[in-house]
Amino acid sequence: MPELRIDPVTGRRTYIAEDRAGRPSDFAHPAPGKAASALARTEAASEARRAACPFCAGHEAAAPIEAAAVRDAAGRWQVRVVPNKFPAVASLASSAPDDPAAGVQEVIIESPRHLRDLAELSPAEFAVALVVCRDRIRHWAADGRLRHAMAFKNSGYAAGASLEHIHSQLIVLPYVPDTVGAELSGAARYFAATGRCQYCDLLAAEVAGAVRLVAANAGFVAWCAHAGRQPYETWIVPRRHATHFEDVSTDEAGLLAQTLHEVVRRLHTATGGADYNLVLHSGPWHDAHAASYHWHWELTPRLAPLAGLELGAGVFINSLAPERAARRLREAL
Amino acid sequence: MPELRIDPVTGRRTYIAEDRAGRPSDFAHPAPGKAASALARTEAASEARRAACPFCAGHEAAAPIEAAAVRDAAGRWQVRVVPNKFPAVASLASSAPDDPAAGVQEVIIESPRHLRDLAELSPAEFAVALVVCRDRIRHWAADGRLRHAMAFKNSGYAAGASLEHIHSQLIVLPYVPDTVGAELSGAARYFAATGRCQYCDLLAAEVAGAVRLVAANAGFVAWCAHAGRQPYETWIVPRRHATHFEDVSTDEAGLLAQTLHEVVRRLHTATGGADYNLVLHSGPWHDAHAASYHWHWELTPRLAPLAGLELGAGVFINSLAPERAARRLREAL
Repeated sequence: MPELRIDPVTGRRTYIAEDRAGRPSDFAHPAPGKAASALARTEAASEARRAACPFCAGHEAAAPIEAAAVRDAAGRWQVRVVPNKFPAVASLASSAPDDPAAGVQEVIIESPRHLRDLAELSPAEFAVALVVCRDRIRHWAADGRLRHAMAFKNSGYAAGASLEHIHSQLIVLPYVPDTVGAELSGAARYFAATGRCQYCDLLAAEVAGAVRLVAANAGFVAWCAHAGRQPYETWIVPRRHATHFEDVSTDEAGLLAQTLHEVVRRLHTATGGADYNLVLHSGPWHDAHAASYHWHWELTPRLAPLAGLELGAGVFINSLAPERAARRLREAL
Repeated sequence: MPELRIDPVTGRRTYIAEDRAGRPSDFAHPAPGKAASALARTEAASEARRAACPFCAGHEAAAPIEAAAVRDAAGRWQVRVVPNKFPAVASLASSAPDDPAAGVQEVIIESPRHLRDLAELSPAEFAVALVVCRDRIRHWAADGRLRHAMAFKNSGYAAGASLEHIHSQLIVLPYVPDTVGAELSGAARYFAATGRCQYCDLLAAEVAGAVRLVAANAGFVAWCAHAGRQPYETWIVPRRHATHFEDVSTDEAGLLAQTLHEVVRRLHTATGGADYNLVLHSGPWHDAHAASYHWHWELTPRLAPLAGLELGAGVFINSLAPERAARRLREAL
């Protein structure tokens, strides 16, 4: 029997309908998770892509403006930040001070090697990339025209990636995006009613309940979201209440890298390599509601295309119960 | 230079960034629009799928409960409505009267033949299917537990289809879905401020401006949405103000079928067969705000995967200006 679940923060509706996993399909794919990426990633074409990859070490001329980098003792970069060559936002430098179209879009190249996924990096290497991301956000937070920073990783074609070389993106905007605004309002309502942070309470309840837990360490807890939009949707939440991701210490970034890395490896194993989005949800700057907000990351695998119902109604269908998904993820390694 | 556009009704943000169409991609596809569907639709496999298709004439035993049908003089069905065999909602019959998980999900099989797209039907055949859809919505509107009906067609894998045989879906819910709620609120605010319907005003402005027009007849006008989320997003809006789709006359349904059919054929030609969602946006029942709402259809091609920004921020990027898209659609036939 299908079940309607309501996201506790935003009120977003998802139907959990496991019978739908047995639907027949005319659209055969090599593996449910891999979708178009797997079809396109033929090893024959791989050498040509490496030779042309603008993110590989030795190809720095393809992205000449370096906004930041971390280098090893020999001067070779390990993580490099460059402006997005095909931005959706207008350049901050050449826009009027109050232009809402202005913003910042940067690419964080997370390895000089042509790796294709987070699981191929070590947790320590990923921690360096997270610290670089934090520092870029700190940098832009000082610019009074900007209100909000969102970091995200699109892994695979179904998740919107265009280049396979491992990278994340940072977008910094002069407004609070709608989805984050809905989370802020929800958390502020909860705080007004209870005097407590909703995410802190959710974290405590998920740890106590344990059925949706995926991973945990001293700093972070990861669980399958109660009303996740896709099979295996997982939230990674810091135990310490904080509004802004950019307030993490370097030690905390190490613990976060460990947790994110572990969750992604579990997802890979459980799904045979699903495409996914990994998105930072962090509080805005200069916002009265922000104190009750609690930054976190959301990992959303892209196992089922979003269809007319999702686009037209804002209502989701998930064919795998989050409790079952969490068990599979726990058993995956 | 990218441009930020705000949907006039909902406030949804889309960046129009045409330079992004020139981005390099590691994920090669046979044609930009066809994505996974084209890969899967090999003619070799087609015969096997027809033999197993639960929607073809002669296979009625695969979907035995017929909710409605239109038959020709010889008694053969032309359009057939059956309950969705894999529903996301709980059965209305076996739920408590106030259960928000309850609802109705039906499939409208639009031809007894194994056609795969709207363009293969005649406009007259499609008009029959639209009248059947209208009548099913009228039927469910009489059930006091239900608040809102949404019809939609998922065409192709990227749009969420699982079966290729031409069909639409109807979902009837005991609440107003979030996306429709945002449209209702926007239209009600506009009405409160101006005393006029926002969609009527938009229609008049699009007809006068003409740059985004795609098709028009005595009953309907189709234009590329000013802040469309994807290249070629097109709204199909009735000239006559009405809140509810189910109030269309049979003549109006004929004019609507003609317009929808023409827009889809133009999209096919312009894109080489993009997957798409075609979604009815209609007013809810028993709602004080509904009078200022104006039903319409939205056609959203699925040419670019929704990525981390779209999922995480609710902000869209469209790499084709709606004005240019409209010109291409106008020139396509």
